Amino acid sequence: MPEPIAFYFDFASPYGYFAATRIDGIARAHGREVAWRPIALGATFKLTGMKPTVEQPLRAAYFRRDIQRFARLLGVPFRMPQAMPMNGLAAGRAFWWLNDERPEAAKRLAFAVLEEHWGRGRDLSDAAAVARLAGGLGIDPAALLAAVQDPAVKARFRDETERSMALGVFGSPYVIVDGEPFWGADRLDQVERWLATGGW
Amino acid sequence: MPEPIAFYFDFASPYGYFAATRIDGIARAHGREVAWRPIALGATFKLTGMKPTVEQPLRAAYFRRDIQRFARLLGVPFRMPQAMPMNGLAAGRAFWWLNDERPEAAKRLAFAVLEEHWGRGRDLSDAAAVARLAGGLGIDPAALLAAVQDPAVKARFRDETERSMALGVFGSPYVIVDGEPFWGADRLDQVERWLATGGW
Repeated sequence: MPEPIAFYFDFASPYGYFAATRIDGIARAHGREVAWRPIALGATFKLTGMKPTVEQPLRAAYFRRDIQRFARLLGVPFRMPQAMPMNGLAAGRAFWWLNDERPEAAKRLAFAVLEEHWGRGRDLSDAAAVARLAGGLGIDPAALLAAVQDPAVKARFRDETERSMALGVFGSPYVIVDGEPFWGADRLDQVERWLATGGW
Repeated sequence: MPEPIAFYFDFASPYGYFAATRIDGIARAHGREVAWRPIALGATFKLTGMKPTVEQPLRAAYFRRDIQRFARLLGVPFRMPQAMPMNGLAAGRAFWWLNDERPEAAKRLAFAVLEEHWGRGRDLSDAAAVARLAGGLGIDPAALLAAVQDPAVKARFRDETERSMALGVFGSPYVIVDGEPFWGADRLDQVERWLATGGW
């Protein structure tokens, strides 16, 4: 069995959402699994000197236009959230708290957060909002609210981000297929081709 | 007649080179013309707070890998230049000096510079190297060397970059089709689709 495809994303990244709508289907078509790995790009940006796109002159205006156009092209629900960038700490910690024991539930929760935030424009920065969403997915909201305050869970999310940086991850989405890195939702066609051809 | 498609690029950008190998063909297939518009992104980066990718931790390593892989995918010649980022001032000034009177010669020179720098890895930062290349294309090398020192030509290149920023251009390649902006060589498929469908 080959390694699962590693799918790194930040909840605050709409391109991460776009990739999340496609990555499992692409993998499945080639008999592959996907390991979802949310990270906190704030830490990464400190290293690379980047800022969130919405805070950059010129780029912010393009970004707003591009993500709406990209969503229409993909045919996925999209509504501009009122708060950008969202704070993805609660969602990220909740994911890593769940992932070891219940990876499918962790992935379902992650996708629900992305869909609610980017597809419906509802702010998911708040732990209470993440917990409410989790409740509808059979995940105990009270346990989640406790977990996101647990120092061990907080450390886990930080560690996962540190580990991703050690592997060279600097953006969202960032996909690694058999050691080969692909950055950006607009590289998923290349990911697909890489899986189909074994590289070029 | 619709406006020509505006194709903004920096000579120092390999993604600008990749786009240059495709943009005229894409336009022609839809009965459209392309106006090439080299700019100096150094000025733009001062406004947006960006740095050349080769100077950014993590991103630089990915960039080197991505451009070689992208070139193989497109099937275009590629050789990593020894000097990155290249200084595109001489090439940019030479282009704008030629463009009003001889737009086809300006485009041929621009493509030759990109091909020589990115396709063959020869540094084209130096005005003398640009002039030598120009000589082979029927452009007077001595006149070119004088032009790139002419304050009016220098000002023209600066003005074109200023104008591009006023239109929101912040990267290379940046393509504007009937008011619709597309940033990145990986958006050319969307440009193609936009031309074919009139938008979505």
